Amino acid sequence: MSFLFNRMTIIGVGLIGGSLARAVKKQGLCGEVVGCDRNADELNTALQLGVIDRAETNIGAAIANADIVVLATPVGSMRGIMQALAPNWNADAILTDVGSVKQCVVDDARAAFSRLPPGFIPGHPIAGTEKSGVAASFDSLYDKRCVILTPVEESAAWAIDKTKSLWEKVGAEVVTMSAEHHDDVLAATSHLPHLLAFGLVDTLGRMHEQSEIFKFAAGGFRDFTRIASSDPVMWRDICIANRRALLAVIDRFSGDLQSIRAAIEMADSENLKTVFTRAKQTRDRYVVK
Amino acid sequence: MSFLFNRMTIIGVGLIGGSLARAVKKQGLCGEVVGCDRNADELNTALQLGVIDRAETNIGAAIANADIVVLATPVGSMRGIMQALAPNWNADAILTDVGSVKQCVVDDARAAFSRLPPGFIPGHPIAGTEKSGVAASFDSLYDKRCVILTPVEESAAWAIDKTKSLWEKVGAEVVTMSAEHHDDVLAATSHLPHLLAFGLVDTLGRMHEQSEIFKFAAGGFRDFTRIASSDPVMWRDICIANRRALLAVIDRFSGDLQSIRAAIEMADSENLKTVFTRAKQTRDRYVVK
Repeated sequence: MSFLFNRMTIIGVGLIGGSLARAVKKQGLCGEVVGCDRNADELNTALQLGVIDRAETNIGAAIANADIVVLATPVGSMRGIMQALAPNWNADAILTDVGSVKQCVVDDARAAFSRLPPGFIPGHPIAGTEKSGVAASFDSLYDKRCVILTPVEESAAWAIDKTKSLWEKVGAEVVTMSAEHHDDVLAATSHLPHLLAFGLVDTLGRMHEQSEIFKFAAGGFRDFTRIASSDPVMWRDICIANRRALLAVIDRFSGDLQSIRAAIEMADSENLKTVFTRAKQTRDRYVVK
Repeated sequence: MSFLFNRMTIIGVGLIGGSLARAVKKQGLCGEVVGCDRNADELNTALQLGVIDRAETNIGAAIANADIVVLATPVGSMRGIMQALAPNWNADAILTDVGSVKQCVVDDARAAFSRLPPGFIPGHPIAGTEKSGVAASFDSLYDKRCVILTPVEESAAWAIDKTKSLWEKVGAEVVTMSAEHHDDVLAATSHLPHLLAFGLVDTLGRMHEQSEIFKFAAGGFRDFTRIASSDPVMWRDICIANRRALLAVIDRFSGDLQSIRAAIEMADSENLKTVFTRAKQTRDRYVVK
């Protein structure tokens, strides 16, 4: 029996890392899956649930003899972790991640490694739920989902191919693009919506009689704000790490919102109907049901 | 066998009106349910589906001998309909509606009737889906949902009680408040979220390579923008009809969004973490799962 990898080390065994571990084990892709997390409770839960084969709290012990290391921690923590990995890095191993922002991960790697390893393949599975933690992980999270890889100039073809195989074997479709383009696209479709959801709930929560307000919120509000139940630290990190692209799309959206505001103030029926109709057509056409 | 109403006339037989008709018939609350709609196809579908007992395109014929008339059309059309109803209005009948804005319906009624009938009881069931039309209606739409009634000074106690009974018998919880307060609350929890969803999808749809952008949208985006698939004309009417309250909450939200933007620009981690954490706690506490 031949494994895709002999030993995979996942640093950060939460929803995303835990779900990858489960999927990899279900598909029999690795000889051993090692988990490493600074949260001992989470790590212990992962071991007890059988999500990982072995738990290590020491990062050096965790990556020993691993042929692939996956960073699945908040993006704000990646530079420090890579600095810990760099001194004894095995040039034959793959170093990938699941961070929601990609240029910052590339920058972190360039800061941590004097020369980027050929196995460095930044990645981002477009998958997740508003829940956090290994207890919320499940083996089909990546099934039929999209994974974006943003290899750099130094990335070796063999490492790109193996990382692509990994994701495809757990059911995902893999797309390759530049880190900058990834960050622009995700700022628009993921980071800004999260910001608006957090912002709206906070605005309403700070108004008078907040519990009464939410009593009259219907299903539309529940769905619209679901992502405001996401992990605040993870999203704080994402917003700061992707601030170049995020500020640009916030400004674009804010400008459009002011135009809509003006149309409402002037009771400009035609203008509002045009905007709302165009939005409905766009969503009905492009957003998967 | 005693009915709550002998004849109920529903003007506007779409998702909301059709679902009320279905629920009323299922519970056996009315001797006859008459539907009236200017869209002959919708009306015919309603009759064929058994949602209504009788279809009338003429408004005078539709309301003849009705002891309750329910307006379930977009709020922009209500004044004209009430002007058509007023000349021959039966003072013993209830006139209610399901409009998402209430002060404008009161204003429309005051404009249409020289003296408001005692049976005038404005109402708003907090229920719906992003779909439209009678084919999308279903008899459990109001089950365990909230209905807000905003009676006016002229509203008679008997009419309030009977309208309350109607909604309770189709499964809803009924709350009474002023039209102005209703409009403030719904501007925050419903009208603004719809505006943001329409606005975001339109902003993204007008960016380059829109189909590529939406390809990388995940489940969070799909849920966040679900309400952008709602009926554009209905929402155009709501935004204009409730512009007093809506402009106020747009301005409050825009101000808060600019504060968040400033925190991102300055990489103010603590501030962002505070806002996101407070939002998550608010949502997890108040918004029904």
